Amino acid sequence: MTDSSMQAPIFLADYVKQLEVSVKRVMAERQQVVEPRLWDAMSYALLAGGKRVRPALLLACFEACGGKNEKVAMPAAISIECMHTYSLIHDDLPCMDDDNLRRGKPTCHKQFDEATAVLAADALQTLSFELLTSMDVPADTRIALLRRLAVAAGAQGMVGGQMMDMRAEAGGVNSVLEVERIHLHKTGALIRYSCEAGALLAGANEKELHACSRYGEAVGLLFQIADDILDATATSEDLGKSAGKDEAQNKATYVSIEGIERARELADNLRDIALDACKILTNKGEHLAALADYILERGK
Amino acid sequence: MTDSSMQAPIFLADYVKQLEVSVKRVMAERQQVVEPRLWDAMSYALLAGGKRVRPALLLACFEACGGKNEKVAMPAAISIECMHTYSLIHDDLPCMDDDNLRRGKPTCHKQFDEATAVLAADALQTLSFELLTSMDVPADTRIALLRRLAVAAGAQGMVGGQMMDMRAEAGGVNSVLEVERIHLHKTGALIRYSCEAGALLAGANEKELHACSRYGEAVGLLFQIADDILDATATSEDLGKSAGKDEAQNKATYVSIEGIERARELADNLRDIALDACKILTNKGEHLAALADYILERGK
Repeated sequence: MTDSSMQAPIFLADYVKQLEVSVKRVMAERQQVVEPRLWDAMSYALLAGGKRVRPALLLACFEACGGKNEKVAMPAAISIECMHTYSLIHDDLPCMDDDNLRRGKPTCHKQFDEATAVLAADALQTLSFELLTSMDVPADTRIALLRRLAVAAGAQGMVGGQMMDMRAEAGGVNSVLEVERIHLHKTGALIRYSCEAGALLAGANEKELHACSRYGEAVGLLFQIADDILDATATSEDLGKSAGKDEAQNKATYVSIEGIERARELADNLRDIALDACKILTNKGEHLAALADYILERGK
Repeated sequence: MTDSSMQAPIFLADYVKQLEVSVKRVMAERQQVVEPRLWDAMSYALLAGGKRVRPALLLACFEACGGKNEKVAMPAAISIECMHTYSLIHDDLPCMDDDNLRRGKPTCHKQFDEATAVLAADALQTLSFELLTSMDVPADTRIALLRRLAVAAGAQGMVGGQMMDMRAEAGGVNSVLEVERIHLHKTGALIRYSCEAGALLAGANEKELHACSRYGEAVGLLFQIADDILDATATSEDLGKSAGKDEAQNKATYVSIEGIERARELADNLRDIALDACKILTNKGEHLAALADYILERGK
Protein backbone atom coordinates (compact mmCIF):
# COMPACT_ATOMS: atom_id res chain seq x y z
CA MET A 1 0.00 0.00 0.00
CA THR A 2 1.37 3.35 -1.02
CA ASP A 3 0.24 6.61 0.54
CA SER A 4 -1.27 7.72 -2.75
CA SER A 5 -3.45 4.60 -2.99
CA MET A 6 -5.33 5.78 0.11
CA GLN A 7 -5.97 9.18 -1.42
CA ALA A 8 -9.47 9.72 -2.71
CA PRO A 9 -9.58 10.22 -6.49
CA ILE A 10 -9.78 13.90 -7.46
CA PHE A 11 -13.28 13.56 -8.96
CA LEU A 12 -14.45 12.12 -5.63
CA ALA A 13 -13.22 15.22 -3.81
CA ASP A 14 -15.12 17.24 -6.39
CA TYR A 15 -18.33 15.23 -5.84
CA VAL A 16 -17.96 15.61 -2.07
CA LYS A 17 -17.53 19.37 -2.36
CA GLN A 18 -20.60 19.74 -4.59
CA LEU A 19 -22.59 17.49 -2.30
CA GLU A 20 -21.73 19.41 0.85
CA VAL A 21 -22.57 22.75 -0.75
CA SER A 22 -25.93 21.29 -1.79
CA VAL A 23 -26.60 19.75 1.63
CA LYS A 24 -25.97 23.12 3.25
CA ARG A 25 -28.39 24.78 0.83
CA VAL A 26 -31.10 22.18 1.51
CA MET A 27 -30.71 22.65 5.25
CA ALA A 28 -30.56 26.45 4.97
CA GLU A 29 -33.88 26.43 3.07
CA ARG A 30 -35.44 24.68 6.06
CA GLN A 31 -33.85 26.63 8.90
CA GLN A 32 -36.81 28.96 9.38
CA VAL A 33 -39.40 26.19 9.50
CA VAL A 34 -37.69 23.55 11.66
CA GLU A 35 -37.38 23.56 15.46
CA PRO A 36 -33.86 24.93 16.11
CA ARG A 37 -32.38 22.09 18.16
CA LEU A 38 -33.76 19.51 15.74
CA TRP A 39 -32.29 21.48 12.83
CA ASP A 40 -28.93 21.66 14.62
CA ALA A 41 -28.82 17.92 15.22
CA MET A 42 -29.79 17.10 11.63
CA SER A 43 -27.16 19.49 10.26
CA TYR A 44 -24.53 18.26 12.70
CA ALA A 45 -24.99 14.66 11.62
CA LEU A 46 -25.24 15.42 7.90
CA LEU A 47 -22.15 17.63 7.88
CA ALA A 48 -19.93 15.62 10.23
CA GLY A 49 -17.78 14.51 7.31
CA GLY A 50 -17.70 10.99 5.98
CA LYS A 51 -16.49 9.64 2.68
CA ARG A 52 -19.82 10.22 0.88
CA VAL A 53 -19.36 6.94 -0.99
CA ARG A 54 -23.06 6.48 -1.74
CA PRO A 55 -23.68 9.89 -3.33
CA ALA A 56 -20.40 9.50 -5.23
CA LEU A 57 -21.52 6.16 -6.62
CA LEU A 58 -24.86 7.68 -7.61
CA LEU A 59 -23.19 10.59 -9.40
CA ALA A 60 -20.59 8.35 -11.05
CA CYS A 61 -23.27 5.94 -12.35
CA PHE A 62 -25.29 8.94 -13.56
CA GLU A 63 -22.32 10.14 -15.58
CA ALA A 64 -21.32 6.67 -16.72
CA CYS A 65 -24.81 6.19 -18.20
CA GLY A 66 -24.62 9.45 -20.11
CA GLY A 67 -26.24 11.82 -17.59
CA LYS A 68 -25.19 15.36 -18.41
CA ASN A 69 -26.37 17.81 -15.77
CA GLU A 70 -25.29 16.82 -12.28
CA LYS A 71 -27.78 19.29 -10.81
CA VAL A 72 -30.57 16.92 -11.88
CA ALA A 73 -29.06 14.07 -9.88
CA MET A 74 -27.94 16.10 -6.84
CA PRO A 75 -31.22 15.91 -4.82
CA ALA A 76 -31.04 12.10 -5.10
CA ALA A 77 -27.41 12.22 -3.95
CA ILE A 78 -28.41 14.27 -0.90
CA SER A 79 -31.37 11.97 -0.32
CA ILE A 80 -29.17 8.89 -0.12
CA GLU A 81 -26.82 10.64 2.31
CA CYS A 82 -29.81 11.57 4.52
CA MET A 83 -30.92 7.93 4.55
CA HIS A 84 -27.42 6.70 5.35
CA THR A 85 -26.92 9.33 8.07
CA TYR A 86 -30.22 8.45 9.77
CA SER A 87 -29.16 4.80 9.91
CA LEU A 88 -25.80 5.71 11.47
CA ILE A 89 -27.43 7.84 14.18
CA HIS A 90 -29.76 5.02 15.20
CA ASP A 91 -26.96 2.41 14.97
CA ASP A 92 -24.87 4.48 17.38
CA LEU A 93 -27.58 4.72 20.07
CA PRO A 94 -26.91 3.16 23.49
CA CYS A 95 -29.54 0.47 22.86
CA MET A 96 -27.81 -0.49 19.59
CA ASP A 97 -24.02 -0.30 19.08
CA ASP A 98 -23.55 2.28 21.86
CA ASP A 99 -20.85 4.27 20.08
CA ASN A 100 -19.46 7.57 21.34
CA LEU A 101 -17.37 8.41 18.33
CA ARG A 102 -18.26 8.66 14.64
CA ARG A 103 -16.00 10.13 11.99
CA GLY A 104 -13.77 11.41 14.78
CA LYS A 105 -16.54 13.42 16.42
CA PRO A 106 -19.04 12.77 19.21
CA THR A 107 -22.00 10.74 17.94
CA CYS A 108 -25.30 12.60 17.66
CA HIS A 109 -26.70 11.38 20.99
CA LYS A 110 -23.44 12.34 22.72
CA GLN A 111 -23.36 15.80 21.16
CA PHE A 112 -27.07 16.40 21.86
CA ASP A 113 -29.08 13.77 23.76
CA GLU A 114 -30.75 10.46 22.98
CA ALA A 115 -34.23 11.80 22.32
CA THR A 116 -32.91 14.50 19.99
CA ALA A 117 -30.80 11.93 18.16
CA VAL A 118 -33.77 9.58 17.67
CA LEU A 119 -35.88 12.43 16.28
CA ALA A 120 -33.15 13.97 14.10
CA ALA A 121 -32.60 10.59 12.49
CA ASP A 122 -36.34 10.05 12.02
CA ALA A 123 -36.58 13.42 10.29
CA LEU A 124 -33.59 12.60 8.08
CA GLN A 125 -35.31 9.45 6.86
CA THR A 126 -38.39 11.52 6.01
CA LEU A 127 -36.25 14.16 4.30
CA SER A 128 -34.63 11.46 2.21
CA PHE A 129 -38.02 10.62 0.68
CA GLU A 130 -39.14 14.25 0.51
CA LEU A 131 -36.15 15.25 -1.62
CA LEU A 132 -37.00 12.63 -4.24
CA THR A 133 -40.62 13.78 -4.56
CA SER A 134 -39.67 17.20 -5.93
CA MET A 135 -36.87 16.26 -8.33
CA ASP A 136 -36.83 17.79 -11.76
CA VAL A 137 -37.47 14.51 -13.61
CA PRO A 138 -40.74 12.88 -14.79
CA ALA A 139 -43.10 11.62 -12.06
CA ASP A 140 -42.58 8.03 -13.24
CA THR A 141 -38.83 8.30 -12.67
CA ARG A 142 -39.38 9.82 -9.23
CA ILE A 143 -41.73 6.97 -8.33
CA ALA A 144 -39.18 4.40 -9.56
CA LEU A 145 -36.53 5.92 -7.29
CA LEU A 146 -38.88 6.27 -4.31
CA ARG A 147 -39.96 2.66 -4.63
CA ARG A 148 -36.44 1.28 -4.95
CA LEU A 149 -35.23 3.44 -2.07
CA ALA A 150 -38.05 2.27 0.20
CA VAL A 151 -37.37 -1.40 -0.56
CA ALA A 152 -33.60 -0.94 -0.13
CA ALA A 153 -33.88 0.99 3.14
CA GLY A 154 -36.74 -0.79 4.92
CA ALA A 155 -37.51 -4.11 6.55
CA GLN A 156 -36.51 -6.05 3.42
CA GLY A 157 -33.25 -4.14 3.11
CA MET A 158 -31.11 -2.01 5.41
CA VAL A 159 -33.23 -2.12 8.57
CA GLY A 160 -33.72 -5.86 8.15
CA GLY A 161 -29.96 -6.26 7.81
CA GLN A 162 -29.35 -4.29 10.98
CA MET A 163 -31.77 -6.57 12.80
CA MET A 164 -30.00 -9.68 11.39
CA ASP A 165 -26.67 -8.23 12.47
CA MET A 166 -27.86 -7.64 16.05
CA ARG A 167 -29.27 -11.14 16.26
CA ALA A 168 -26.08 -12.59 14.78
CA GLU A 169 -24.03 -10.97 17.54
CA ALA A 170 -26.18 -12.79 20.07
CA GLY A 171 -26.36 -16.14 18.26
CA GLY A 172 -23.55 -17.95 16.51
CA VAL A 173 -23.07 -16.94 12.90
CA ASN A 174 -20.16 -18.87 11.48
CA SER A 175 -20.56 -19.13 7.73
CA VAL A 176 -19.45 -16.66 5.12
CA LEU A 177 -22.79 -17.06 3.37
CA GLU A 178 -24.61 -15.88 6.49
CA VAL A 179 -22.23 -12.92 6.91
CA GLU A 180 -22.80 -12.09 3.24
CA ARG A 181 -26.58 -12.26 3.64
CA ILE A 182 -26.41 -9.78 6.50
CA HIS A 183 -24.27 -7.36 4.54
CA LEU A 184 -26.25 -7.63 1.31
CA HIS A 185 -29.11 -6.27 3.41
CA LYS A 186 -27.41 -3.99 5.93
CA THR A 187 -25.10 -2.06 3.63
CA GLY A 188 -25.43 -3.69 0.21
CA ALA A 189 -29.03 -2.78 -0.56
CA LEU A 190 -28.53 0.96 -0.18
CA ILE A 191 -25.24 0.96 -2.09
CA ARG A 192 -26.83 -0.96 -4.96
CA TYR A 193 -29.77 1.44 -4.92
CA SER A 194 -27.34 4.37 -5.19
CA CYS A 195 -25.91 2.91 -8.39
CA GLU A 196 -29.33 2.07 -9.83
CA ALA A 197 -30.66 5.53 -9.00
CA GLY A 198 -27.81 7.18 -10.90
CA ALA A 199 -28.56 4.99 -13.92
CA LEU A 200 -32.32 5.65 -13.79
CA LEU A 201 -31.80 9.40 -13.54
CA ALA A 202 -29.53 9.30 -16.59
CA GLY A 203 -32.25 7.50 -18.57
CA ALA A 204 -30.15 4.33 -18.82
CA ASN A 205 -31.36 1.43 -20.95
CA GLU A 206 -32.03 -1.99 -19.38
CA LYS A 207 -28.50 -3.23 -20.08
CA GLU A 208 -26.88 -0.20 -18.47
CA LEU A 209 -29.22 -0.34 -15.46
CA HIS A 210 -28.38 -4.01 -15.00
CA ALA A 211 -24.64 -3.25 -15.24
CA CYS A 212 -24.92 -0.54 -12.57
CA SER A 213 -26.95 -2.88 -10.40
CA ARG A 214 -24.31 -5.64 -10.67
CA TYR A 215 -21.55 -3.13 -10.08
CA GLY A 216 -23.38 -1.82 -7.02
CA GLU A 217 -23.86 -5.27 -5.55
CA ALA A 218 -20.18 -6.15 -5.94
CA VAL A 219 -19.00 -2.80 -4.61
CA GLY A 220 -21.39 -3.06 -1.65
CA LEU A 221 -19.83 -6.32 -0.49
CA LEU A 222 -16.35 -5.03 -1.31
CA PHE A 223 -17.06 -2.04 0.89
CA GLN A 224 -18.02 -4.29 3.78
CA ILE A 225 -15.01 -6.60 3.46
CA ALA A 226 -12.75 -3.55 3.28
CA ASP A 227 -14.45 -2.31 6.46
CA ASP A 228 -13.90 -5.63 8.23
CA ILE A 229 -10.23 -5.64 7.18
CA LEU A 230 -9.82 -2.03 8.31
CA ASP A 231 -11.41 -2.79 11.68
CA ALA A 232 -8.94 -5.63 12.19
CA THR A 233 -5.83 -3.75 11.06
CA ALA A 234 -6.20 0.01 11.56
CA THR A 235 -6.02 2.16 14.68
CA SER A 236 -8.94 4.14 16.13
CA GLU A 237 -7.11 7.31 15.12
CA ASP A 238 -6.97 6.17 11.48
CA LEU A 239 -10.64 5.27 11.51
CA GLY A 240 -12.11 8.17 13.46
CA LYS A 241 -14.09 5.53 15.31
CA SER A 242 -13.29 2.67 17.67
CA ALA A 243 -11.08 0.05 15.97
CA GLY A 244 -10.83 -3.62 16.86
CA LYS A 245 -14.47 -3.53 17.89
CA ASP A 246 -15.47 -6.56 15.85
CA GLU A 247 -12.99 -8.80 17.63
CA ALA A 248 -13.76 -7.29 21.02
CA GLN A 249 -17.47 -8.00 20.43
CA ASN A 250 -16.68 -11.45 19.08
CA LYS A 251 -18.49 -10.47 15.91
CA ALA A 252 -18.64 -12.70 12.85
CA THR A 253 -16.94 -10.91 9.94
CA TYR A 254 -15.22 -11.97 6.73
CA VAL A 255 -11.94 -11.60 8.62
CA SER A 256 -12.97 -13.59 11.71
CA ILE A 257 -14.32 -16.48 9.65
CA GLU A 258 -11.97 -16.61 6.67
CA GLY A 259 -8.84 -14.93 8.00
CA ILE A 260 -7.26 -11.75 6.72
CA GLU A 261 -5.57 -13.22 3.64
CA ARG A 262 -8.67 -14.95 2.31
CA ALA A 263 -10.69 -11.79 3.02
CA ARG A 264 -8.25 -9.85 0.85
CA GLU A 265 -8.63 -12.41 -1.94
CA LEU A 266 -12.43 -12.13 -1.74
CA ALA A 267 -12.11 -8.36 -1.95
CA ASP A 268 -9.88 -8.63 -5.04
CA ASN A 269 -12.42 -10.93 -6.70
CA LEU A 270 -15.27 -8.52 -5.99
CA ARG A 271 -13.24 -5.66 -7.43
CA ASP A 272 -12.82 -7.70 -10.66
CA ILE A 273 -16.56 -8.40 -10.82
CA ALA A 274 -17.30 -4.70 -10.30
CA LEU A 275 -14.83 -3.63 -12.99
CA ASP A 276 -16.19 -6.22 -15.39
CA ALA A 277 -19.75 -4.99 -14.88
CA CYS A 278 -18.93 -1.37 -15.60
CA LYS A 279 -16.94 -2.17 -18.76
CA ILE A 280 -20.01 -1.79 -20.97
CA LEU A 281 -20.50 1.76 -19.67
CA THR A 282 -18.25 3.65 -22.02
CA ASN A 283 -19.04 7.11 -20.71
CA LYS A 284 -16.69 7.73 -17.77
CA GLY A 285 -16.89 4.12 -16.61
CA GLU A 286 -13.39 4.87 -15.38
CA HIS A 287 -14.80 6.82 -12.44
CA LEU A 288 -16.61 3.68 -11.33
CA ALA A 289 -13.43 1.66 -11.71
CA ALA A 290 -11.51 4.23 -9.68
CA LEU A 291 -14.16 4.15 -6.94
CA ALA A 292 -13.96 0.35 -6.73
CA ASP A 293 -10.18 0.59 -6.42
CA TYR A 294 -10.46 3.33 -3.82
CA ILE A 295 -12.84 1.23 -1.72
CA LEU A 296 -10.59 -1.82 -2.08
CA GLU A 297 -7.45 0.09 -1.11
CA ARG A 298 -9.03 1.38 2.10
CA GLY A 299 -9.03 -2.18 3.38
CA LYS A 300 -5.57 -3.21 2.20
CA MET B 1 -72.40 12.16 28.26
CA THR B 2 -74.49 9.15 27.38
CA ASP B 3 -73.02 5.71 26.85
CA SER B 4 -74.01 5.75 23.21
CA SER B 5 -72.13 8.98 22.52
CA MET B 6 -68.86 7.14 23.30
CA GLN B 7 -69.68 4.37 20.84
CA ALA B 8 -67.85 4.55 17.56
CA PRO B 9 -70.18 5.13 14.61
CA ILE B 10 -71.00 1.90 12.77
CA PHE B 11 -69.21 2.97 9.58
CA LEU B 12 -66.06 3.55 11.68
CA ALA B 13 -66.18 -0.03 12.91
CA ASP B 14 -66.51 -1.07 9.27
CA TYR B 15 -63.50 1.02 8.23
CA VAL B 16 -61.47 -0.42 11.11
CA LYS B 17 -62.36 -3.96 10.13
CA GLN B 18 -61.42 -3.40 6.48
CA LEU B 19 -58.21 -1.69 7.52
CA GLU B 20 -57.10 -4.47 9.84
CA VAL B 21 -57.78 -7.14 7.22
CA SER B 22 -55.68 -5.12 4.77
CA VAL B 23 -52.87 -4.52 7.27
CA LYS B 24 -52.69 -8.26 7.91
CA ARG B 25 -52.48 -8.93 4.18
CA VAL B 26 -49.71 -6.35 3.68
CA MET B 27 -47.71 -7.88 6.54
CA ALA B 28 -48.38 -11.46 5.37
CA GLU B 29 -47.01 -10.57 1.92
CA ARG B 30 -43.76 -9.56 3.62
CA GLN B 31 -43.41 -12.38 6.12
CA GLN B 32 -41.04 -14.45 4.00
CA VAL B 33 -38.68 -11.58 3.23
CA VAL B 34 -38.40 -9.83 6.59
CA GLU B 35 -36.26 -10.91 9.55
CA PRO B 36 -38.72 -12.76 11.86
CA ARG B 37 -38.31 -10.75 15.07
CA LEU B 38 -38.49 -7.48 13.14
CA TRP B 39 -41.63 -8.71 11.40
CA ASP B 40 -43.14 -9.72 14.76
CA ALA B 41 -42.47 -6.31 16.30
CA MET B 42 -43.89 -4.44 13.29
CA SER B 43 -47.02 -6.61 13.28
CA TYR B 44 -47.43 -6.36 17.05
CA ALA B 45 -47.36 -2.57 16.97
CA LEU B 46 -49.57 -2.26 13.88
CA LEU B 47 -52.19 -4.67 15.18
CA ALA B 48 -52.26 -3.62 18.83
CA GLY B 49 -55.62 -1.96 18.37
CA GLY B 50 -56.15 1.78 18.39
CA LYS B 51 -59.03 3.84 17.13
CA ARG B 52 -57.65 4.12 13.57
CA VAL B 53 -58.84 7.71 13.40
CA ARG B 54 -56.39 8.73 10.67
CA PRO B 55 -57.26 5.96 8.19
CA ALA B 56 -60.95 6.53 8.95
CA LEU B 57 -60.61 10.23 8.15
CA LEU B 58 -58.82 9.38 4.93
CA LEU B 59 -61.51 6.92 3.86
CA ALA B 60 -64.33 9.27 4.90
CA CYS B 61 -62.83 12.18 2.93
CA PHE B 62 -62.31 9.87 -0.03
CA GLU B 63 -66.00 8.97 0.01
CA ALA B 64 -67.13 12.50 0.77
CA CYS B 65 -65.32 13.72 -2.36
CA GLY B 66 -66.99 11.10 -4.54
CA GLY B 67 -64.38 8.32 -4.37
CA LYS B 68 -66.06 5.06 -5.30
CA ASN B 69 -63.74 2.11 -4.78
CA GLU B 70 -62.30 1.96 -1.27
CA LYS B 71 -59.68 -0.55 -2.44
CA VAL B 72 -57.98 2.30 -4.30
CA ALA B 73 -57.60 4.32 -1.11
CA MET B 74 -56.77 1.44 1.25
CA PRO B 75 -52.96 1.38 0.72
CA ALA B 76 -52.87 5.08 1.69
CA ALA B 77 -54.99 4.29 4.76
CA ILE B 78 -52.51 1.59 5.81
CA SER B 79 -49.63 3.92 5.00
CA ILE B 80 -50.90 6.60 7.38
CA GLU B 81 -51.37 4.02 10.14
CA CYS B 82 -47.77 2.80 9.61
CA MET B 83 -46.53 6.39 9.94
CA HIS B 84 -48.61 7.00 13.06
CA THR B 85 -47.55 3.69 14.63
CA TYR B 86 -43.85 4.39 14.06
CA SER B 87 -44.23 7.73 15.83
CA LEU B 88 -45.95 6.10 18.82
CA ILE B 89 -43.20 3.48 19.18
CA HIS B 90 -40.48 6.13 19.26
CA ASP B 91 -42.52 8.41 21.55
CA ASP B 92 -42.85 5.56 24.05
CA LEU B 93 -39.08 4.86 24.23
CA PRO B 94 -37.31 5.34 27.60
CA CYS B 95 -35.40 8.35 26.23
CA MET B 96 -38.68 9.99 25.19
CA ASP B 97 -41.96 9.57 27.14
CA ASP B 98 -40.83 6.29 28.75
CA ASP B 99 -44.24 4.62 28.60
CA ASN B 100 -44.86 0.98 29.47
CA LEU B 101 -48.46 0.79 28.35
CA ARG B 102 -50.08 1.65 25.03
CA ARG B 103 -53.64 0.76 24.09
CA GLY B 104 -53.77 -1.45 27.18
CA LYS B 105 -50.78 -3.56 26.08
CA PRO B 106 -47.03 -3.45 26.75
CA THR B 107 -45.34 -0.87 24.54
CA CYS B 108 -43.15 -2.25 21.75
CA HIS B 109 -39.86 -1.84 23.64
CA LYS B 110 -41.39 -3.58 26.66
CA GLN B 111 -42.78 -6.46 24.63
CA PHE B 112 -39.54 -6.86 22.65
CA ASP B 113 -36.53 -4.66 23.52
CA GLU B 114 -35.39 -1.12 22.82
CA ALA B 115 -33.24 -1.88 19.78
CA THR B 116 -35.99 -3.95 18.17
CA ALA B 117 -38.51 -1.19 18.86
CA VAL B 118 -36.28 1.48 17.29
CA LEU B 119 -35.81 -0.66 14.17
CA ALA B 120 -39.44 -1.79 13.85
CA ALA B 121 -40.53 1.84 13.96
CA ASP B 122 -37.88 2.83 11.43
CA ALA B 123 -39.11 0.12 9.08
CA LEU B 124 -42.73 1.21 9.56
CA GLN B 125 -41.84 4.73 8.47
CA THR B 126 -40.19 3.30 5.35
CA LEU B 127 -43.18 1.04 4.70
CA SER B 128 -45.48 4.04 4.94
CA PHE B 129 -43.72 5.59 1.94
CA GLU B 130 -43.33 2.29 0.11
CA LEU B 131 -47.07 1.62 0.15
CA LEU B 132 -47.79 4.93 -1.57
CA THR B 133 -45.31 4.27 -4.38
CA SER B 134 -47.23 1.29 -5.74
CA MET B 135 -50.80 2.58 -5.48
CA ASP B 136 -53.15 2.06 -8.39
CA VAL B 137 -53.46 5.77 -9.22
CA PRO B 138 -51.51 7.97 -11.68
CA ALA B 139 -47.85 8.66 -10.81
CA ASP B 140 -48.63 12.37 -10.35
CA THR B 141 -51.20 11.58 -7.66
CA ARG B 142 -48.79 9.24 -5.91
CA ILE B 143 -46.11 11.94 -5.96
CA ALA B 144 -48.60 14.48 -4.54
CA LEU B 145 -49.38 12.14 -1.65
CA LEU B 146 -45.75 11.22 -1.03
CA ARG B 147 -44.74 14.87 -0.96
CA ARG B 148 -47.52 15.93 1.41
CA LEU B 149 -46.87 12.94 3.66
CA ALA B 150 -43.16 13.72 3.89
CA VAL B 151 -43.80 17.36 4.75
CA ALA B 152 -46.49 16.43 7.30
CA ALA B 153 -44.42 13.71 8.98
CA GLY B 154 -40.93 15.20 8.98
CA ALA B 155 -38.97 18.01 10.61
CA GLN B 156 -41.50 20.63 9.48
CA GLY B 157 -44.43 18.55 10.77
CA MET B 158 -44.86 15.68 13.19
CA VAL B 159 -41.22 15.12 14.21
CA GLY B 160 -40.72 18.87 14.63
CA GLY B 161 -43.82 18.97 16.84
CA GLN B 162 -42.52 16.14 19.00
CA MET B 163 -39.27 18.08 19.44
CA MET B 164 -41.20 21.26 20.37
CA ASP B 165 -43.24 19.23 22.84
CA MET B 166 -40.14 17.82 24.55
CA ARG B 167 -38.58 21.25 24.77
CA ALA B 168 -41.82 22.72 26.10
CA GLU B 169 -41.83 20.22 28.95
CA ALA B 170 -38.39 21.49 29.94
CA GLY B 171 -39.06 25.21 29.44
CA GLY B 172 -42.17 27.12 30.43
CA VAL B 173 -44.90 27.13 27.81
CA ASN B 174 -47.85 29.07 29.13
CA SER B 175 -49.85 30.37 26.19
CA VAL B 176 -52.60 28.61 24.30
CA LEU B 177 -51.04 29.80 21.05
CA GLU B 178 -47.81 27.99 21.88
CA VAL B 179 -49.69 24.83 22.85
CA GLU B 180 -51.62 25.09 19.59
CA ARG B 181 -48.43 25.53 17.55
CA ILE B 182 -47.03 22.33 19.07
CA HIS B 183 -50.15 20.34 18.30
CA LEU B 184 -50.61 21.70 14.80
CA HIS B 185 -47.22 20.10 14.17
CA LYS B 186 -47.19 17.05 16.43
CA THR B 187 -50.62 15.60 15.67
CA GLY B 188 -52.33 18.14 13.41
CA ALA B 189 -50.11 17.85 10.34
CA LEU B 190 -50.64 14.11 9.91
CA ILE B 191 -54.38 14.33 10.57
CA ARG B 192 -54.75 17.12 8.03
CA TYR B 193 -52.70 15.10 5.55
CA SER B 194 -55.04 12.12 6.06
CA CYS B 195 -57.98 14.26 5.01
CA GLU B 196 -56.16 15.80 2.06
CA ALA B 197 -54.96 12.38 0.88
CA GLY B 198 -58.52 11.06 0.82
CA ALA B 199 -59.60 14.05 -1.25
CA LEU B 200 -56.68 13.78 -3.68
CA LEU B 201 -57.31 10.06 -4.22
CA ALA B 202 -60.96 10.77 -5.00
CA GLY B 203 -59.91 13.31 -7.64
CA ALA B 204 -61.37 16.20 -5.63
CA ASN B 205 -61.48 19.68 -7.13
CA GLU B 206 -59.64 22.58 -5.48
CA LYS B 207 -62.67 23.60 -3.44
CA GLU B 208 -63.24 20.12 -2.08
CA LEU B 209 -59.54 19.65 -1.32
CA HIS B 210 -59.52 22.95 0.56
CA ALA B 211 -62.63 21.92 2.50
CA CYS B 212 -61.03 18.61 3.54
CA SER B 213 -57.87 20.47 4.50
CA ARG B 214 -59.80 22.91 6.74
CA TYR B 215 -61.83 20.08 8.18
CA GLY B 216 -58.63 18.15 8.92
CA GLU B 217 -56.99 21.09 10.64
CA ALA B 218 -59.99 21.68 12.89
CA VAL B 219 -60.42 17.99 13.68
CA GLY B 220 -56.69 17.67 14.40
CA LEU B 221 -56.86 20.32 17.12
CA LEU B 222 -60.18 18.97 18.35
CA PHE B 223 -58.56 15.57 18.69
CA GLN B 224 -55.77 17.03 20.81
CA ILE B 225 -58.08 19.02 23.10
CA ALA B 226 -60.24 15.93 23.55
CA ASP B 227 -57.07 14.03 24.45
CA ASP B 228 -56.06 16.67 27.01
CA ILE B 229 -59.54 16.60 28.55
CA LEU B 230 -59.50 12.80 28.64
CA ASP B 231 -56.10 12.75 30.30
CA ALA B 232 -57.41 15.08 33.00
CA THR B 233 -60.71 13.28 33.60
CA ALA B 234 -60.47 9.58 32.67
CA THR B 235 -58.84 6.66 34.48
CA SER B 236 -55.89 4.67 33.16
CA GLU B 237 -58.23 1.73 32.70
CA ASP B 238 -60.51 3.80 30.47
CA LEU B 239 -57.57 5.01 28.40
CA GLY B 240 -55.50 1.85 28.10
CA LYS B 241 -52.54 4.07 28.95
CA SER B 242 -51.39 6.07 31.96
CA ALA B 243 -53.91 8.83 32.81
CA GLY B 244 -53.20 12.08 34.64
CA LYS B 245 -49.74 12.06 33.09
CA ASP B 246 -49.97 15.62 31.81
CA GLU B 247 -50.56 17.03 35.28
CA ALA B 248 -47.99 14.74 36.87
CA GLN B 249 -45.43 15.93 34.31
CA ASN B 250 -46.54 19.53 34.79
CA LYS B 251 -47.20 19.66 31.06
CA ALA B 252 -48.78 22.65 29.37
CA THR B 253 -52.09 21.56 27.82
CA TYR B 254 -55.33 23.27 26.85
CA VAL B 255 -56.72 22.09 30.18
CA SER B 256 -53.80 23.24 32.34
CA ILE B 257 -53.76 26.71 30.78
CA GLU B 258 -57.42 27.42 30.12
CA GLY B 259 -59.17 25.12 32.58
CA ILE B 260 -61.52 22.28 31.76
CA GLU B 261 -64.59 24.37 30.97
CA ARG B 262 -62.85 26.68 28.53
CA ALA B 263 -61.15 23.66 26.91
CA ARG B 264 -64.61 22.17 26.32
CA GLU B 265 -65.80 25.42 24.76
CA LEU B 266 -62.77 25.47 22.45
CA ALA B 267 -63.53 21.90 21.45
CA ASP B 268 -67.16 22.78 20.67
CA ASN B 269 -66.00 25.69 18.52
CA LEU B 270 -63.59 23.48 16.57
CA ARG B 271 -66.36 20.95 16.01
CA ASP B 272 -68.48 23.73 14.48
CA ILE B 273 -65.61 24.82 12.23
CA ALA B 274 -65.10 21.22 11.11
CA LEU B 275 -68.79 20.69 10.39
CA ASP B 276 -68.97 23.96 8.51
CA ALA B 277 -66.02 22.99 6.32
CA CYS B 278 -67.49 19.65 5.29
CA LYS B 279 -70.91 21.10 4.46
CA ILE B 280 -69.96 21.64 0.82
CA LEU B 281 -69.13 17.94 0.49
CA THR B 282 -72.55 16.56 -0.33
CA ASN B 283 -71.48 12.96 -0.82
CA LYS B 284 -71.50 11.33 2.61
CA GLY B 285 -70.26 14.48 4.33
CA GLU B 286 -72.28 13.10 7.22
CA HIS B 287 -69.54 10.54 7.95
CA LEU B 288 -67.13 13.43 8.48
CA ALA B 289 -69.62 15.15 10.75
CA ALA B 290 -70.09 11.94 12.73
CA LEU B 291 -66.32 11.52 13.08
CA ALA B 292 -65.96 15.08 14.41
CA ASP B 293 -68.71 14.38 16.93
CA TYR B 294 -67.14 11.08 17.90
CA ILE B 295 -63.77 12.75 18.51
CA LEU B 296 -65.44 15.53 20.50
CA GLU B 297 -67.44 13.12 22.65
CA ARG B 298 -64.34 11.17 23.64
CA GLY B 299 -63.18 14.20 25.56
CA LYS B 300 -66.48 15.20 27.13
